Parts: sequence; C-alpha cells; structure tokens
Amino acid sequence: MLLHTIYLIAIVAEAMSGAIMGMRRDMDLFGICVVGTITALGGGSMRDILLGNYPLGWIAHPEYLLFTIGAAVVTALVARFLHHLRSVFLVVDGLGLVAFSVIGCDVARAAGMAPGIVILAGMITGVFGGLLRDVLCNEIPLVLQRELYATIALFTGALYVGLLWWDVDSSAAPLIAIGAGFLVRLLALRFHWKLPSFNGSGIRGFE
Amino acid sequence: MLLHTIYLIAIVAEAMSGAIMGMRRDMDLFGICVVGTITALGGGSMRDILLGNYPLGWIAHPEYLLFTIGAAVVTALVARFLHHLRSVFLVVDGLGLVAFSVIGCDVARAAGMAPGIVILAGMITGVFGGLLRDVLCNEIPLVLQRELYATIALFTGALYVGLLWWDVDSSAAPLIAIGAGFLVRLLALRFHWKLPSFNGSGIRGFE
Amino acid sequence: MLLHTIYLIAIVAEAMSGAIMGMRRDMDLFGICVVGTITALGGGSMRDILLGNYPLGWIAHPEYLLFTIGAAVVTALVARFLHHLRSVFLVVDGLGLVAFSVIGCDVARAAGMAPGIVILAGMITGVFGGLLRDVLCNEIPLVLQRELYATIALFTGALYVGLLWWDVDSSAAPLIAIGAGFLVRLLALRFHWKLPSFNGSGIRGFE
Repeated sequence: MLLHTIYLIAIVAEAMSGAIMGMRRDMDLFGICVVGTITALGGGSMRDILLGNYPLGWIAHPEYLLFTIGAAVVTALVARFLHHLRSVFLVVDGLGLVAFSVIGCDVARAAGMAPGIVILAGMITGVFGGLLRDVLCNEIPLVLQRELYATIALFTGALYVGLLWWDVDSSAAPLIAIGAGFLVRLLALRFHWKLPSFNGSGIRGFE
Repeated sequence: MLLHTIYLIAIVAEAMSGAIMGMRRDMDLFGICVVGTITALGGGSMRDILLGNYPLGWIAHPEYLLFTIGAAVVTALVARFLHHLRSVFLVVDGLGLVAFSVIGCDVARAAGMAPGIVILAGMITGVFGGLLRDVLCNEIPLVLQRELYATIALFTGALYVGLLWWDVDSSAAPLIAIGAGFLVRLLALRFHWKLPSFNGSGIRGFE
Repeated sequence: MLLHTIYLIAIVAEAMSGAIMGMRRDMDLFGICVVGTITALGGGSMRDILLGNYPLGWIAHPEYLLFTIGAAVVTALVARFLHHLRSVFLVVDGLGLVAFSVIGCDVARAAGMAPGIVILAGMITGVFGGLLRDVLCNEIPLVLQRELYATIALFTGALYVGLLWWDVDSSAAPLIAIGAGFLVRLLALRFHWKLPSFNGSGIRGFE
C-alpha cells in the first residue's frame, strides 16, 4: 500500500523529468506527453517484455497513463517556475529510483526468476525509463555516464534480495531496502560520488 | 478487404519514407531496406510486443517484407526523380497514417483491451514506425515535434472507437474514421496546423 | 558443443566491442558493462522478443552475463594495450557474426518459422547487438552503412537454410555455413567490399 503510493509519486517524478527533457528539445505537447510517459513507464515495460510478463502494468492499469500525461501537461504549464523545484525533484526522483528497483525485484520474484535476474530486473525498472528518454531525445544516456544512479538501483535490489534471503520479514524488507538505497542516493548527490570512467578515445577499429 | 488494400499501400508509403531517410544518411542498400522495413512494420510490431499479441504480423505474413523491401529498392533506384512525387507521397502517407490507426485499434479490440488502450494501440501503430526510423537515423523523432501527425492518429482512433460504441455498422465505422482522419490530415498539411510547444531550454538539473 | 563454444567466444568479442564504444563516449564502468552486455546479447534478445520465444537466452542462462560483464571489465582495464589486438578482434568478431547467424536460424527453425523468417532471425541475431550499441552511443548504426557486415549474416543464414533443405547432414551444415560465411567476411575485410549506397541528400519532405 505504502509501496503503491511511492510508486505513483515516482511515476509522476519520472514523467516530469521526461517532459522537461522534451521541452528542451522543442517538442510539441504531444511529444512532451509521450516522452514523459515513456520515461515513467518505460523501465517497467522493458522489464516485462524481457521477462515475458504480460500484460504490461499500464495495460492492466490504464489509469497510470492519466498520472503520467497529467504530470507532463502540468510540467509544461508551470515550466517557468520549475527551477524553484529542483531540490524537491531530485529527492523525489531518488525515492522513485529505489522504489522502482524494489518493485521490479518483486515482479521478477513473482515470476520465479533466479536471484541474479531478480536484481537485474529491479535495475532495469529503475533506469531504463531514463535511458529511453535520452535515446528519444538524441542524447547519450546519462545513466550510462555518471553519478552512481544505476549502481544505486543495483545496490537497492541486491540488498532487498539479501534481506529476503536472510528471512527478514517481507513487509519490513522493502522498506529497509528503500530507506538504505534512498540514503545512499542522497549521499551520492551531496558528495558527487562517481564510478571510475575510462578514456577510450584513442582506440579505433573495434566496432 | 478495402482496408487490407489500403494497408498494403500504406506500408509501401512508409517504406519509401524510411528508404529516403536512409539514403540521406548515406546508408548502403541493406541499411535502406532495413530502415524502410522498420518504418513500415515497426509501429505494428511495437504494438504487438506491448500487447503480447503473437505472432507479429510480418512473421505470420512474411510476404509483407517483399512489399517493404521492394518499395525500398525501387525508391533507391528512382531517387533522382522522387521530388516530382512529393505531393503524392504526402497524400498516401496521410492515408497510411489513418489506416494504420484504425487497423491498430482493431487488433487491440480483438485482444479484448480497454477503450483507452485500443485508441493508444491505434496511435502506436500509426506513429512508432516513423519514430523508430528517426532513432535509427540519429534524429529527434519528428512525430514528437510537429504538425499534429500523432494527434491525427489519436483523433482517428478515438472517432473509430466512438463510432463502434454508438453502434455504427462495423463495416461503415472504419471507413468513416479513415475518411474523417484523412480529411483532417489534409487540412493540417494545407494550413500548417500545430500543437503548442514549450521552450524548456532554461530548465536544468531534472534529468 | 563446438557451436556453443564459438557462441561464448562470440559474446565475449561483442561485449568487448560494446565496451570500447562505451569508453569512447566517456561512460563510467557501469555504462561500459551495460553497453557491452547489450551489444553481446541484444541481437538474440531482439530475435526472441520478435518471435515471442520466451524465456530469453540470458534469463535461462544468467551465467552468460558473467561472460559479457567480465569481458567489459577486462576490456576497460587493458584499454591502453588494445590496439595490439585489433586484427585478432576483427577475426573473432567475424566468427561471432556468422556463429550468431547460424544459432539464430536454429532458434527460429525450432520455433517452426517459415524459411524466410528463419534467415531473417539469423540476420537479426547477428547484427542487432551492434545496432543497439550504436543507438545507445548516439551514432547512426554502422551496420546500416558499410562493409557488407549484415549481408554476410544474410548470406550465412541463407546458405545454412539451403544446406538443410538439400538434406545436408545437420551436424555438417552449421559448420559449412560458418566456414563459408567466415571466409566471405575475411575477404570482405581484406578487399573492402561494399554494397552500393545512394546519395539522397537532395530529397526533402518525405518524412
């Protein structure tokens, strides 16, 4: 129940993120709604397509589309005031990331997947929406470039699967995982944590 | 039967559109055929993957691939004369858009989807081929940026679902929806109708 | 058995190719692993999603992910020495391309597909990993632009299906197809064979 409320808040935050990126690319209102919706629901859809887990969430619950389209339209209307909301957005977006991860793990567990696939399903749910948003907006996906974003999705999923493995109560485990993942996300934002990157600009001829 | 003929004309028009975009990107003949085929069949394939509706159309009917590949090859061969055909192309492409929408609605209805999902399935069928074409050609999808293209797909699908809801005869309803959608498309082209867009270039830090 | 060994070598080569492209785009270690894995396993995944053939290979065999992630990490660590390996890479990559094609044909045959779809499934298995890699890295897919790469996947698949049609022994047929395809790939690399391309830069207004 709490998880479901967090999920709805998360898809609104993700839809906002997509709508803003769409506005920056001079999309019309339709494009803004599409990019917002794909950002919000693309991660879960990609997970379900890869797992063969039908029907997709938004097909079983078309009302989710009202949340994402509504969030995109409101974002477009209040765009000029959005810079005041940046800190709120980052916090809500971080909460969404870890909630998506835990929810993605649950879906894969219910489908009887191996633990490694469960963690991966959580990570895909958390990050693929943003990845599709960036591909649609003709950008190299940010999630592949910086700030431990995806690593936090992996960490949250691994912690959650570990807690269940250690027989932690199944109503407490998601909350512990979400709390810990969210804390790490806030620390990563505050201290600009990064994974190592590698300069491959001199390597030619392998594609 | 008439709908099927319109469908074949539509995939030829879409394959032409993809082939021309591929040629502009200096693709070889293989790439031109791939982009043409994905433009023509990508919308229906995306719809069927999202709905879990297998087998995909072109797998059940591989002969569709002959139409799209043939159209791409012919387009490449006659490229230098194509500018004479631009008006014909826009008319055929508009007919294809609304036919794709109605056909997409029919597929989702046959799969027992809710009315909102039926309309969305029609829209995805109409516009995702062009969207995939633009992603492959490293462009921000035009369909997200301009000219009411996608909105006409939505309008056509919504009208079609409404007509069936109002018990209009099921052989007349697709023709009325296609006729009305096609008319709106021609008016949108003639008068350069647009949805509002929003300048989000000043908003940073939400991705 | 031999085919399976070649497959594992092939996914390692493809993961290297993806990791190198990721490094060139300044991705972090996570991004490098994701692009490597998608390059290696994306072709087979796309084929299985299009065919509705579940579960996907890497979900049934999560250990494949260890190969692709391991290959990506090692590639990142030894990046500065990679230019010595370019010739080895091109040979292994060519072997992977034709092995992927034959394996993709086998999967579609086992699913009872028509011969044209079998050949196409082999081609998709061979080339879609590289295509997804290039889309993620914000490039026009190289496979659509040059060097007969995809054509060799088609040739290998068509030869393999033809050999089985002519009742060639089913343990000999894949080896003959792989050998012939590999030879053509080496010749194409050596002599820079190309398909014709077409200059469409002057054609406007068809998208």
